[in-house]
Amino acid sequence: MTKKIGYLGPKGTFTKIAVDSLFNGEEKASYGTIPECIDAVESNEIDIGVVPLENAIEGTVHLTIDYMIHQVRLPIIAEVVVPIKQHLMVREGFDQSFLDIKHVYSHSHAIAQCHQFLHHNLQHANVHYTTSTGKAAEMVSESDSTAAAIGNELAAKEYGLKVLKKNIHDYPNNHTRFAVLSKQADPLMGEHHLAGAQKTTLMITLPSDYAGALHQVLSAFAWRKMNLSKIESRPMKTGLGNYFFIIDVNQPYDQVLFPGVIAELEALGCKVTILGTYPVFTMDIQA
Amino acid sequence: MTKKIGYLGPKGTFTKIAVDSLFNGEEKASYGTIPECIDAVESNEIDIGVVPLENAIEGTVHLTIDYMIHQVRLPIIAEVVVPIKQHLMVREGFDQSFLDIKHVYSHSHAIAQCHQFLHHNLQHANVHYTTSTGKAAEMVSESDSTAAAIGNELAAKEYGLKVLKKNIHDYPNNHTRFAVLSKQADPLMGEHHLAGAQKTTLMITLPSDYAGALHQVLSAFAWRKMNLSKIESRPMKTGLGNYFFIIDVNQPYDQVLFPGVIAELEALGCKVTILGTYPVFTMDIQA
Repeated sequence: MTKKIGYLGPKGTFTKIAVDSLFNGEEKASYGTIPECIDAVESNEIDIGVVPLENAIEGTVHLTIDYMIHQVRLPIIAEVVVPIKQHLMVREGFDQSFLDIKHVYSHSHAIAQCHQFLHHNLQHANVHYTTSTGKAAEMVSESDSTAAAIGNELAAKEYGLKVLKKNIHDYPNNHTRFAVLSKQADPLMGEHHLAGAQKTTLMITLPSDYAGALHQVLSAFAWRKMNLSKIESRPMKTGLGNYFFIIDVNQPYDQVLFPGVIAELEALGCKVTILGTYPVFTMDIQA
Repeated sequence: MTKKIGYLGPKGTFTKIAVDSLFNGEEKASYGTIPECIDAVESNEIDIGVVPLENAIEGTVHLTIDYMIHQVRLPIIAEVVVPIKQHLMVREGFDQSFLDIKHVYSHSHAIAQCHQFLHHNLQHANVHYTTSTGKAAEMVSESDSTAAAIGNELAAKEYGLKVLKKNIHDYPNNHTRFAVLSKQADPLMGEHHLAGAQKTTLMITLPSDYAGALHQVLSAFAWRKMNLSKIESRPMKTGLGNYFFIIDVNQPYDQVLFPGVIAELEALGCKVTILGTYPVFTMDIQA
């Protein structure tokens, strides 16, 4: 049976690149916001949803995590890491220089990521903000030859644009993490050719906001030599000063270490929820 | 001498609300991106810059922190906390019902924050994404009476719109934190009527990515009973797997505890940078 995959759209976004790297041939549907995409998995409209988790251009990690924590609790069945490479693209047939570009279109985060390049090469051009990098490419495809968009290779392909200058982003090692959400675990995912190490993500709520509480929590992992690759405090929606923590542990869930950690934390008065234990897929986009 | 204040624009954004709450009568200039605003402080074009630090609609915490860490190092001289309240606004003279609204305009994050309200009341309307909540209000002010915008009270005022329904956001306790950046500390800020507790923000780079390193770092704070209100790991731009930490300590910098912590951390091989010690201003927007 063909699976239905939903993602944060429109087409030509980095989320779509993540989806295409992982899924082949399935039916793919684009959603306008992160909550819409998560709701569609919850209501069985789609089988799998792909949304940005961290450092995304079009989304925000906080929105995804908060929506998953407070509204719709779905397991993370995989993570996809996509390198962020921004290109300057123009209409086919453009054979002039940077000086002839009068208008640059892109999402404000992409514009910000290419700040140094724009400052040195396109200071004379007017910058226009769009709602996504895909939208910018679409607008340039319908514009005249003085317009350029900043976006990824997929956007260039989708809208028939030519890449005038590759890799104009300021930082070479920028990545975005995407979460793959589904009600059913997919045992086949671990056999995908991009599949790498396994991770486990936990949500931990502290009993109260006192000095050293987090230190105690981390002790439970440290003395078991369990490595954490990410820790982030997020405010509870119950008011300022109440926090929960999202912790990524660099190993799959097991029947010894994790139950031990959880029992210790619960004895301290913490609440622990497992958000998922899953493989990490790392994409390598050709530069 | 009148100070020049720069902020992440356009007018009618939550950043502008933060600026207006803190500064009165000064010259205020809007910037299109976070790096542009930070650069303007660095080049002395403005005296003070205000940019979102966390959970913002129009910006992203990661962009601000990363730009400050990697490109332009400016001290944080204050933090402003603004409650996020989203309203549904229409043109003056609109006297119909929700059913007559055919188009809703806003930034995708604001749309997402009002997901439940839209689902129950405006499912028949077309949603259009804009680059900011201020821009949405501007578009509705130039549109016909079937259009509505989602944004804050300032946007309604700036563009002469009527608030049809207040507080349509899903979560009651949503806040955005803004950083006030300046080359000169402003001793007067501590006497502002909104000034509250003092905070200190540190950036800590671990010597290597080994199990328990963060636990050791937190020990230095825990045994001194120094309370942390925020901890976040961020990838270094040198490649995957290298992290630094941003830590907020709930007390002002002093000559005993902080030098003690820093000496211990440096002995462990960490690099510690003080990003600022400053008062926190908490705004109370009338609902």
